[in-house]
Amino acid sequence: MLREYLPFWDRLTEGQRRRLEEGAAVRRFARGEMVYGGGTECAGLILPTEGQLRAYMLTDEGRELTLYRLFPRDMCLFSASCVLRGIQFDVLVEAERDTTALFLPAEVYQGLMEESAAVANYTSELMADRFSEVMWRMDQILSKKLDGRLAALLVEESRLAESASLRLTHDQLARHLGSAREVVSRLLKDFQNDGLVRLGRGGVELLDLPALEALASDSLR
Amino acid sequence: MLREYLPFWDRLTEGQRRRLEEGAAVRRFARGEMVYGGGTECAGLILPTEGQLRAYMLTDEGRELTLYRLFPRDMCLFSASCVLRGIQFDVLVEAERDTTALFLPAEVYQGLMEESAAVANYTSELMADRFSEVMWRMDQILSKKLDGRLAALLVEESRLAESASLRLTHDQLARHLGSAREVVSRLLKDFQNDGLVRLGRGGVELLDLPALEALASDSLR
Repeated sequence: MLREYLPFWDRLTEGQRRRLEEGAAVRRFARGEMVYGGGTECAGLILPTEGQLRAYMLTDEGRELTLYRLFPRDMCLFSASCVLRGIQFDVLVEAERDTTALFLPAEVYQGLMEESAAVANYTSELMADRFSEVMWRMDQILSKKLDGRLAALLVEESRLAESASLRLTHDQLARHLGSAREVVSRLLKDFQNDGLVRLGRGGVELLDLPALEALASDSLR
Repeated sequence: MLREYLPFWDRLTEGQRRRLEEGAAVRRFARGEMVYGGGTECAGLILPTEGQLRAYMLTDEGRELTLYRLFPRDMCLFSASCVLRGIQFDVLVEAERDTTALFLPAEVYQGLMEESAAVANYTSELMADRFSEVMWRMDQILSKKLDGRLAALLVEESRLAESASLRLTHDQLARHLGSAREVVSRLLKDFQNDGLVRLGRGGVELLDLPALEALASDSLR
């Protein structure tokens, strides 16, 4: 099972593989459940094998901002920040769908990183990937107006859900964007008046995907 | 010389040390000079031994945003993104003071990362440090109003310069903050009216540091 998910598996010794196998635990989470709550907790490394996780930060004002999604095979490093020297920020993780994930104990992984350049380099690479996603997000925040970011979010969510009917509340959308619910509700009403969406109970239906896509990319200017 | 700057030096073999020593080059930059211009250029790793560098990003709108400073011993990884898999964003680097820096060739460093877990782990740790700084910056952008960020910047710059007289133009301040010059000029005029600063030719004098500090931290709420 682990062999499939860890690209450095072939470069481990028998003993190292055994340590991982003995330490790994499978856990299941229902949609909406908290997977990792940040802080001093050290959950270890989380490797989803099914489902979808959302990694987000809390701003000083207590708002959520979605940083990135984790799909099967996307290892989450920050839940093991106790063993990753230099990580001084909190990332929280929740299940966005029913999710099954492997948990690798932090101290076992740390031991492997110290012994094996392959594991250490895989870890840097993962960090670089996440870093790139976060930089992209920051660029969006700095460059785009909120209406464009909301349009981009609706388009992205509709791709993830493979549906034009999104079961997302205004509050959830605001949390993805690091904004306030009132602000997002106002924008959604504007979108509705422009014929881009239809607002309903606990959801948003996308009526004009091309126009939303245009709004998402126009606002780059 | 390298021994002093590379914490993993003692864990390298003689051959690895020789490769680094033969590859390293010393370069000097005048204040204001571009050290690394991003893009596909692969400058290698930059290790300042004297002076001060500023690492920044360009937003889609072409604005600069200061990400972090590099002081002597702070290795710059992103100038070697050609060998760091996963880095898909551009960081640009300029000399903020007259600076001397060691350049380590990217391919030599890459070789060491593959051979030595110590080098690979040092690299992850550096990346985690920078990641933490960038996350802090993002939190500031999301949580603080621009007046608080400007006040915080003035306080930070005055500490770096060890002086209450900052030789920074409104344009430079705007670039640190990823904002427009006009916006920053307007805020500075407000600050002057409130007796916090005095504006002069090509500079800002801080008149009331405690009030600026209070404004910087108040705006966290």
